[in-house]
Formats: sequence, structure tokens, C-alpha cells
Amino acid sequence: MSTDRFAQSAALLERADKVVPGGIHGHQTPAMLVRGEQPYFYERADGCRIWDVDGNEYIDFMCSYGPIVLGHHHAAVDEAALAQWRKGDCFNGPSRLWVELAERLVAITPFADWAAFAKNGSDVCTWAVRVAREHTGRGKVLMAKGAYHGAHAWCTPSSAGVTPEDRSTVLTFPYNDGAALEAMVGEHGDALAAIIVTPFRHDAFHDQEMPVPGFLETIRRLCTERGIVFILDDVRAGFRLHLGGSGKHFGVRPDLACYAKALANGYPLAACVGAEPFREAARQVYFTGSYFTAAVPMAAALACLDELETSGAIDHMREMGQLFRDGLEDQARSHGLAVTSTGPPALPFMTFRDDRKFARSKAFAAACARHGVFLAPYHNWFLSAAHREDDIRQALDATDLAFAEVRRKSVELFDRT
Amino acid sequence: MSTDRFAQSAALLERADKVVPGGIHGHQTPAMLVRGEQPYFYERADGCRIWDVDGNEYIDFMCSYGPIVLGHHHAAVDEAALAQWRKGDCFNGPSRLWVELAERLVAITPFADWAAFAKNGSDVCTWAVRVAREHTGRGKVLMAKGAYHGAHAWCTPSSAGVTPEDRSTVLTFPYNDGAALEAMVGEHGDALAAIIVTPFRHDAFHDQEMPVPGFLETIRRLCTERGIVFILDDVRAGFRLHLGGSGKHFGVRPDLACYAKALANGYPLAACVGAEPFREAARQVYFTGSYFTAAVPMAAALACLDELETSGAIDHMREMGQLFRDGLEDQARSHGLAVTSTGPPALPFMTFRDDRKFARSKAFAAACARHGVFLAPYHNWFLSAAHREDDIRQALDATDLAFAEVRRKSVELFDRT
Repeated sequence: MSTDRFAQSAALLERADKVVPGGIHGHQTPAMLVRGEQPYFYERADGCRIWDVDGNEYIDFMCSYGPIVLGHHHAAVDEAALAQWRKGDCFNGPSRLWVELAERLVAITPFADWAAFAKNGSDVCTWAVRVAREHTGRGKVLMAKGAYHGAHAWCTPSSAGVTPEDRSTVLTFPYNDGAALEAMVGEHGDALAAIIVTPFRHDAFHDQEMPVPGFLETIRRLCTERGIVFILDDVRAGFRLHLGGSGKHFGVRPDLACYAKALANGYPLAACVGAEPFREAARQVYFTGSYFTAAVPMAAALACLDELETSGAIDHMREMGQLFRDGLEDQARSHGLAVTSTGPPALPFMTFRDDRKFARSKAFAAACARHGVFLAPYHNWFLSAAHREDDIRQALDATDLAFAEVRRKSVELFDRT
Repeated sequence: MSTDRFAQSAALLERADKVVPGGIHGHQTPAMLVRGEQPYFYERADGCRIWDVDGNEYIDFMCSYGPIVLGHHHAAVDEAALAQWRKGDCFNGPSRLWVELAERLVAITPFADWAAFAKNGSDVCTWAVRVAREHTGRGKVLMAKGAYHGAHAWCTPSSAGVTPEDRSTVLTFPYNDGAALEAMVGEHGDALAAIIVTPFRHDAFHDQEMPVPGFLETIRRLCTERGIVFILDDVRAGFRLHLGGSGKHFGVRPDLACYAKALANGYPLAACVGAEPFREAARQVYFTGSYFTAAVPMAAALACLDELETSGAIDHMREMGQLFRDGLEDQARSHGLAVTSTGPPALPFMTFRDDRKFARSKAFAAACARHGVFLAPYHNWFLSAAHREDDIRQALDATDLAFAEVRRKSVELFDRT
């Protein structure tokens, strides 16, 4: 059944395997999904609904791994983008939207006095580290072990193509471990240009962890005391928790913060915002790309931020995420399955307890796909403002069937392997 | 006069300076133009015409520093992009266009068996180096001194924010110097993962240099002999010289080639194509970004490549570039000014002989801007397929006035400073 359901995805993947190394590279690789049981290629999307190339419809809880914060084809965003597109996109320099968007980011971000723009989350995280190095004259960077700050060599999750030199300036500590953090800063503080962390722990293949009380504050204090630059990697969570960034949500003021994903509802854009003391270093560290000043994504971003601010979208995502989470937990209990729900409701994740090799998570994600819900087995999920209560309830009808399948399989399969 | 002519650009730059480090960062910084005498911000564009925020119209010879290869708002490209946009752009995975575009790049590129996609020229050049490292198990890379391969730390033109470790694996030699190249490979060959070069020398602030006979062939031979990966950085020139890439144009087969810019006529896309032996390394080196699989730029790229193949656009750009170059040289002679024209006609550049601090180049670019032609003083220019003979002749009317102004100023100004 599954084979037929995903015949077009499978056929395209077979063609892709011939002409793209691995077929689909990066975080969207089939290896991050349930092979043969989830779609790989997409045809179209609208709101919180997506259609794969086989014509299957899903209520989508991945939101393109974050960018789609208002839903696909949000009217105000698309109208703004299209109006700019009719004038032009990629010029010899920026449009006036470059200025307007930077002003807007500075206005909504409590600690920020400037912004710089790029195309990828990796771009802005790596550039922020370089700004910290230029500012401090130091070389080393401290990050949480296993955190994802992009695909660049200094922090990429794979060691392939990475030289010892790429990693020689990078130190790690366990996320949320204030004592380990203090010890690392105690030992290496004078050599540390930056501490970079995500606002909460959202590593793939792990339950999420909210920052324990005092953790982010300790980073802030140590950075201030030792002249280290505090970089908040808000690429994944930015604008889903607070319009002022996840620093504002958690009550901490970083020195630099990195955004991409939700900034422009899927139009390609990344930004780094920073405080005044880091402006000169930011001016010095060369940062450019052929499409960095393109106007259409900036029109989309301005409309996206307006909508996030005025529509109650952020509250709505939290409420819908909570509704989904509560529903999942009730269902799990009713099926006698022990699950762990983690992360903020707008970026939820759920795993099964004692689930060797994510076997139940995979079975659950596969069953969800059969019943019209798309979510990843190993990676946190995302809500969008386009998820309405009816969508959540329809999704929960599907997840109830999925839990039942996991329960049936549990006896036969998981506990024997 | 100039002040009024660029009042809106100046006002926007003043605002930008408050909220973006340096106002406009990267290659589009005002420092790369004639300050106060050229526009910084753009309102709209069509074909080879651009309009700045002050409403001034220009015939554009920068083509957004390369991406605009068919002209702004090319009907077939925009139609394909818009059709895909109506379905969706940024999904949880690729569309079928991912496969079609990879197949197309493999079909048109003589040496290529696969393709991988990203957003920036920097992305693909850096990733290609990492693929070479993974393939060879070696760490060092050899590049031409002063060449631009992107804004990443290993090769960025500025040293700000760069650590000694970032550069410790990078060796350089002078472009076109076969003897120096042989000596470097002789000494370091067993440690070299890659040699990366542009197909001709197009460094900013320099006359361009075509590859001397045997230069690219020597790289090919040395790479084959010593097991080094030959990376052709075709980001700037790709698809303007040959549909099969600049390697095909110059008769050399690299192992990996990097594209961005002209690939999708301004839509944000970059690609690395490679030969079969490097597929496994490419599969291993993690490469991803939130927008890497976005469908709209791939629709644009497929339409752009079709148009380049079927319309004679590449021949046309060469012919129009030659017409422009011949006209400029005739005009320079008639004004008694000595100029140097360099590079291929589709990516031409012109400097003035014995021009201290580019004073005449700046005066020329400024005068061109006053007369409705936009070109950069320090960076090579670009033709597009939208430049028709009438546009070139109209541009030459403007450049004739510009040469006259340079000649008048030459006596008064340049030779006294």
C-alpha cells in the first residue's frame, strides 16, 4: 500500500539518486524521514496543507522545517512579494525595503541597533562568530555539544570534509549545564570570542530542553564579565515565540542574534541583528552574496512581521500547539503508550519512552503520513498561524489512528527487536 | 547637480547607515562605486534598463553583478517562476524540478554526472573545497592570489574576523603563472586536496586576464597526476560564455564546477556540478539550508537554461559586448585617451592607462551615470541578452559624452594630483 501511495516520490527519488549525491541532500534527506513511508517530493501547498507529488494531502506540522510561519500563500505576504516582484527583485543594490526592514528589526528587537542580511541560517551564524572574533581579537568559540548552528565546517553535524583546523577553535559544553559552562569560561575565557547557543535545546534525535532557570542569565553574566560576545542562534525558533526574538521571550539580552526561517514566511532571507558595540566589527567583516539585497524577500519579511505583530499569530501558534500536544498526550494515555512532549508548544516534539532506535516514532510518523498528517520522526515540529482549531482536531483524528497502529505493532514488533 | 540627482539614494543611505553596519554591506557597498555620483538604491528594472529610487533611468552594464543574464523580467523565466509560485516554493522537500534541473545540468555539462544546489556562490565554492578534502583525505587548497571565491573565511578578501586557522590550509600562486603553479604543486602536491581557479582572471581593481595558452591544461594535468581535485569557480562567468560552462568554452574538464548568478536570471540559486568519482564524497559532506530545495528558483533556472540554449543569447551577448567594446575603444582614441579593454566581450572591463587610484575610471563611471549608463569603476561589467543594438548605440552616445568629460578633467585634475 505504502509503495503505491508514494510511487511518484519513489520514482523521482530514483531519478534524483542518479543526478544528485544522495538524491536529496541536507536536512531534507530521506534518511531523516521514514523511508518509503513518507513523501519526498512536493507538488503544491496552501495554508497548513501540503500535497506531495502523488497527490496525497497532509496537514503539515513541519512548515518546511520552520520558514512557513503564517501558512503557505499567506495573502498579505504574497501580495507584498508580488507587488515588489513586478518592480524587480535582484538589482545592482538594495531597494528601499533594505532600510525599512533593518529599521523594523531594530524597532522590534530590544537589544538591537543594527541588522545585516543574508540568505541562509548558516550564513548568519558563521558571520556572527566572525564579528565576535573581529570585535574581541580572540579566536575561540564555545557552543553546546550537539547543537546545530548550520552546515559550515566549524559546526556541521558531519565530520566529512572537515579539517582539524576547522574545529580547533571550537569548544563545547553540555546545554543547560551551568557548572560546565562556568568551568569552560573559567579555563578559556580570555581566548573566547563568543558563546553561541540556541534559546532552547532543539537538537535533532533528542527530546527538546527548555533553558533551565538561570542558564541563559549565566551566559549573559559570563559574557559581560569576560568580554565575550553572546550570540543567540534564533534561526529555528525566531518569531515563533516572540516578535522581539526568543531572547525577549526568555528575558535575556544577547549581543548578536541570528534569524532566517520564519523571518519571511518561506521567502529566502536571513538576518543578524546586533547591539551598538558590535557595529564596527560588523562593518569590517566582509559579508555578501549575489542575492543578499534582493527586494522580494524583504517585502515578504515586512509583511510577515506586520502580520505576526497585529494578528495575534504568535499567541495563536502557542494555543494550537498546546491543543495538539494535549490531544496527543490524552491519546497516548488512552492507548497505554508512554510519550514525552518537549519544547515550546509552537515548536513541539514528541517521542516515545524507551523507544529503541526511534522505532515507535518511525511507526507513528509513517502511520500519520498514511492518515494525512506530516511530521518528522527525529526533528522537532512547527506550528503555523494557518493551523486552525479544525485542522488540529482533524490532525488528532489521524494521530489517534496512528497511536492505535503503534500500540498494535508494539507487541508484535518493537519489543522483540 | 549630482546631489539632487541622487537625493533619494543619499537620504536612504543616511538612514541605512544608522541601522546596517556600513549602510550597504558586501560587493554592493558604496565604496565600490563613485560616492555621491552613482545610485545606491533601486526602484525597478526591465530588460537592460534600471531605475534608481530618484527615478533616474540607466542602461545597465552590471546586470546585478551577474545574475541578470537574460534581462530583468524575461517573459519566459518569469512565467515559469510565477506558475511554480502559484503552486508553492518552499516545501518540506524538493519539487520535481530539483530532479529536472539536476538532469539538465548533467546533460549540458560535458564532465558532470551530478549536481547539488544551494543559495550563494560562497556556499558552493566552500562546499566544493570540502568535497575535495573528503575525497582526497587531504587538507590544503591552492588558489590564485587575489582571486574571489566568496565571502567565507578561508578566501574572503578582508582579513577582518579571520583566524590564522582559517587561512592555514590555503596556499596561493599568481594566476596564469604556470611555473609558479608547477612549483607549488611540486612542493605541496601530496597535501593538496584542491586547486580552485576562475576560468579567467576577473579580480576587482584589476584588468581582467584571459587564461594564457596551457594554463588551465596545466592545472588539469597536475591535478590528474597528483590526485588533486580541479575546482572551476564559474560563479561569475558561468553560462555567459558557453551553455556547457566556461570549462567547455576554454576546452578544459574540471572535476567540480560552481555556478550561481546567471543560472536562474536573478532568482536565488547556486549549484555545484561534479564528475562521477566525486559523488561519494559529495554525498558525505553535509550541505543544507532552509531554502536550498525551493522550487521557484529552479523553475526560473530551467527556463533560463532553455532560453540560453535556444535563443542564441550567448552569441548575442558576445556580439553586443564586442560592439560596446569596439565603440568605447574608438571613442577613447578619438578623445586621445588610452584605455585597456579586457576580458571576454560578455563580461567586459575597461580601465584607463596610468590611472592613479582609478581617478579616470571614477570620473568616467560618474559621467556615465549622469548620462544614463550604469557601470562600475573597479569591477568587471556584464552584458545580458536584453541588450539590443539600439541599447548599445544609445549607451555609446552617453559614453562619448563621458569620455569628453574625462578628457576635460584630465588636464585640470588627474595629472596634478
